[in-house]
Amino acid sequence: MSSNDGSSDRVREVKVIAPINIALVKYWGKRNEDLMLPLNDSISLSINDMCAKTRVRIGASVKKDSVSINGSNVCLSKHPGFLRCFKEVRRLIRKRSIISETAGKSEKHDYFSKFEVVSETNFPIEAGLASSAAGFAAIAYGLGQIYQLNISDIIRVARMGSGSACRSILSGLVHWKAGTAEDGTDCICETVFPEDYWPTLRSLILVTSHGTKKVSSSNGMQSTVKTSKLLQARMDIVPEQITKLRNAFRDRNFEQLAKVIMSDSGQLHALCMDTMPSLRYLNDNSWYLMQLIHALNRHCKDTKVAYTFDAGPNCCLFLESVNVPLILAAVNKYCKLRSDLIERVAKYPAAFEYGNLRSLVEEEQKNLVLFESIDGQENSEIEPLDGVVNDIFFSCVGVGPFLAESR
Amino acid sequence: MSSNDGSSDRVREVKVIAPINIALVKYWGKRNEDLMLPLNDSISLSINDMCAKTRVRIGASVKKDSVSINGSNVCLSKHPGFLRCFKEVRRLIRKRSIISETAGKSEKHDYFSKFEVVSETNFPIEAGLASSAAGFAAIAYGLGQIYQLNISDIIRVARMGSGSACRSILSGLVHWKAGTAEDGTDCICETVFPEDYWPTLRSLILVTSHGTKKVSSSNGMQSTVKTSKLLQARMDIVPEQITKLRNAFRDRNFEQLAKVIMSDSGQLHALCMDTMPSLRYLNDNSWYLMQLIHALNRHCKDTKVAYTFDAGPNCCLFLESVNVPLILAAVNKYCKLRSDLIERVAKYPAAFEYGNLRSLVEEEQKNLVLFESIDGQENSEIEPLDGVVNDIFFSCVGVGPFLAESR
Repeated sequence: MSSNDGSSDRVREVKVIAPINIALVKYWGKRNEDLMLPLNDSISLSINDMCAKTRVRIGASVKKDSVSINGSNVCLSKHPGFLRCFKEVRRLIRKRSIISETAGKSEKHDYFSKFEVVSETNFPIEAGLASSAAGFAAIAYGLGQIYQLNISDIIRVARMGSGSACRSILSGLVHWKAGTAEDGTDCICETVFPEDYWPTLRSLILVTSHGTKKVSSSNGMQSTVKTSKLLQARMDIVPEQITKLRNAFRDRNFEQLAKVIMSDSGQLHALCMDTMPSLRYLNDNSWYLMQLIHALNRHCKDTKVAYTFDAGPNCCLFLESVNVPLILAAVNKYCKLRSDLIERVAKYPAAFEYGNLRSLVEEEQKNLVLFESIDGQENSEIEPLDGVVNDIFFSCVGVGPFLAESR
Repeated sequence: MSSNDGSSDRVREVKVIAPINIALVKYWGKRNEDLMLPLNDSISLSINDMCAKTRVRIGASVKKDSVSINGSNVCLSKHPGFLRCFKEVRRLIRKRSIISETAGKSEKHDYFSKFEVVSETNFPIEAGLASSAAGFAAIAYGLGQIYQLNISDIIRVARMGSGSACRSILSGLVHWKAGTAEDGTDCICETVFPEDYWPTLRSLILVTSHGTKKVSSSNGMQSTVKTSKLLQARMDIVPEQITKLRNAFRDRNFEQLAKVIMSDSGQLHALCMDTMPSLRYLNDNSWYLMQLIHALNRHCKDTKVAYTFDAGPNCCLFLESVNVPLILAAVNKYCKLRSDLIERVAKYPAAFEYGNLRSLVEEEQKNLVLFESIDGQENSEIEPLDGVVNDIFFSCVGVGPFLAESR
């Protein structure tokens, strides 16, 4: 934590590491655009090792609000999320200054402070990989540490930046409740199970090529809310999806978990299709990977792995750690991975438990043959395809933001 | 019509031309697989110039049931539609023989007759272009002529072959009513408006490459009925879609018609996406064409053309005849059509009204520039794409089957 000794002219600075999170039951559509309130509950897990490392600084030497991401300055007027986020922090400080009997020079100064944000991600931000969730979670958590905000305020600040960012503030299985109150007071996040409840759960993020999306999630949602006729039905279905997912997680029942995750992913993209004009976030490579996952589960006569796709073409897999070599073998064989990619995956912290991951993958790959499902029949081997996956992240799941260092 | 003089040893033969039909409000899912009863109403137009030309023959020289399509013999045991279709005809003849006081040798013989079907289509049957609808409509209509079946029986025979084939039996805007009776007696077709009610309506069918579908419509529907959670919502929405479409047609309001057609197409594919595993009938080329159509309508600041996609990647466009040169210009420019394709389109009967269609298309193309919609902004010109369209059919709409000749 930064010093907070009242000498407000001193620079105060924190460095935060905050993860992206992937929704297992998806959020799509807002009930209030100004307060960033979602139409429906969602549930997520954080991907520990895909994160933003963010330095937040205030003080006399910080003369204006500024945000830099991976070395590029962000034009704040074009990205309302940052302004909403900063405005919410200032509102909280002012509210506290007014309430507090002991409001001194320091707190009044805080209200006029400018914020300097310098953020680096360890993954490409143009790939549509929930980078805004990590980024805003880091900012909210960082400013929260500087100003000693409570956790529910930090969650709200993150949400004002980007709705789903609020789920990156907590650890474990995080349930973001939409609430019904007009002022958003019951729109909260809670940890359903802590991050060590299902310690063998892992995530593999397969980054597909051609990741450009033509419509941002925010605009896409608005368009769905305006035009989709199936949206209301989705709203009626979400509560049972949430219950099923919580129960599957409670029982550490992977098959049930997978079933909910994959059907919920399909339903998100069904809503996108039902939007006019239809929204397209999945590409040929996404479909190829779905086919591959279904083929692998059929091959195993058991559900070993589940996919989910956010509003983007990248494939997020959840699986038990014991099955990581198998699924990597399937991806390696059928996506014709670049020769160095398995080696690189083996260097992630989550891979340390395997010893020689490369040889395990090769062992699994020896006799692995997957078949296409054509009209319910398995006729021919899946044809390996080039250029489907150009990067892989491998991570444990469930940890929220933490301070990297402070001075 | 064939002779029907009681001498049943004579060969009786008809030649029928029957069109494909394209649903404007889609049929997806059966409420009874044996009786081929749909879950929901649908509405279609026939595409006059995409048709099956089918010879149906019975008589002593016909020793077994046989079907040949475009020169290839069909293995009947693998295609239950033909057997269901033939069985239904035999049931009707037997029923009539039993009821009729005057049932003579001829009618008893009819019951034991074998059917020979020889069918040719003027379009590739592997392209997923409702060829079964045209084929079964032709068989049902042909056998109906030979045995003098009434129209509702012909409709049911066609339906037993392939559900949507029953819509190809009538002319004009055809409403196929799902009904609710368990025995299917209220599952009927009716012409809502005759084929000359909206005489300027045209269809352009853009055949995209890579047309193979992995899951047949029939199996796809079954899978949707089993697994989609949004299906019931769709069932609740269809009645209003039907009403809107009938009203748009009644008022010859193209914009309204287009709105219903495109949203209903999106909703069919949304259901496919909501199926587990998700069904994919659209490919990259289909999406490119959707983008192009929306861009063209935006460019015109008016809805000039509507797309619909059945369970396949091919794009069926509906438009007013006056706008045909414009849409062909857009397709020609952005899909980089083969140099001969506009010439070939100009040879369809529906193109005769234009005089020199090629020069009209070139004129429209001169200043036509279409822009992508990126986050609601039109930023850059759409990039022309190769290999999107490899064939085009151009047709008036609405005519049902007719006899080509008879002896």
